[in-house]
Amino acid sequence: MRYIIQKTVLKVKKIGKVKTGWNLPILPLPVCLLGAHVNGKPNFNTIIWFNMIHGTPPLIGVVMSKKHYTNQGVKQNRSFSLNIPTSDMAVVTDYCGLHSGSKVDKSKEFEIFYGDLKTAPMIMECGENIECTLINTVEFKKTELFIGEIVEIYSDEKYIKDDKPYVEKFDTFICLMPNGPYWKIGEYLAEAYEVGTTYKPKN
Amino acid sequence: MRYIIQKTVLKVKKIGKVKTGWNLPILPLPVCLLGAHVNGKPNFNTIIWFNMIHGTPPLIGVVMSKKHYTNQGVKQNRSFSLNIPTSDMAVVTDYCGLHSGSKVDKSKEFEIFYGDLKTAPMIMECGENIECTLINTVEFKKTELFIGEIVEIYSDEKYIKDDKPYVEKFDTFICLMPNGPYWKIGEYLAEAYEVGTTYKPKN
Repeated sequence: MRYIIQKTVLKVKKIGKVKTGWNLPILPLPVCLLGAHVNGKPNFNTIIWFNMIHGTPPLIGVVMSKKHYTNQGVKQNRSFSLNIPTSDMAVVTDYCGLHSGSKVDKSKEFEIFYGDLKTAPMIMECGENIECTLINTVEFKKTELFIGEIVEIYSDEKYIKDDKPYVEKFDTFICLMPNGPYWKIGEYLAEAYEVGTTYKPKN
Repeated sequence: MRYIIQKTVLKVKKIGKVKTGWNLPILPLPVCLLGAHVNGKPNFNTIIWFNMIHGTPPLIGVVMSKKHYTNQGVKQNRSFSLNIPTSDMAVVTDYCGLHSGSKVDKSKEFEIFYGDLKTAPMIMECGENIECTLINTVEFKKTELFIGEIVEIYSDEKYIKDDKPYVEKFDTFICLMPNGPYWKIGEYLAEAYEVGTTYKPKN
């Protein structure tokens, strides 16, 4: 297990909270395998720092440490894929995050398919595949934020009902940053954009 | 329930996948209440498009539609907070996303506390609070990406063990984009950065 802590934990009794001094918050994050061609060969890297940036057109932001081998492939071909693993893929997903494509050939671990972009390799075993063209890169000291436009989303049929996303059936897992055990998605809690209508404001 | 679909669902039998034409992928995303002072008053907005951008210094990116009332407060004071709700807060969290601070006063719904920044209101009832200064804004057509530097993370004591994040105890919920029921975090699946060492490569 890895922990990232920089400062001493201080108790702030006055406000009933602990001032943690942590560098990274605890957050439940989605997990994906980012696919790109690097020097002509498909490669995959495990990523948890990604999320949407814009709806129409659909833009997704993906953050990777500059030291990763896959970054050069994203920039070389200006395309990449995000492949959302099913919960039975935790071991191979974690494996892809532990080893650099500069040392091991991860392309043999999956059945690969392509959409319109011939340099955005996608993983058949993953339940959902997001095919992207790189439209911009924002550089930070040790990371790069790749902004991709989604050109197509591929899905297993079971995640679709009446032509709409059937999220109740969606099978994946999350990573609890920072030391990150992987967790399944649990029980249904409430309807979003709806349950709040039952709230009685205090004021 | 809301669905965002732009194109017809097409079956791509050759590759055994469905080309969905969806604008937004299905993704399990963390939920937070973004806090800011707008025109001198604390306000909170529900957000699921946020994630880390950099580790040291710790930078977090938050995406909000430009039409939200809270954006002007983030820019006015160059500070904001991200408050991670516990699973019993789904109703009030959803309420804050359904109503604009320009019409309702959401500051009365919570016990508010402050850290070093006097314009980043934080919610005592939330299990974790992330206090940020705005360091940059990246504009998109309909959204803004606020890049904040984390100045402190506050936590309930129960999420800390031996001065480290006790993620196993972390209580929050996720939203499954796009139509987003809220879900609890489920069963433990596997150790991240570790379980992959047991994988036997195919090649």
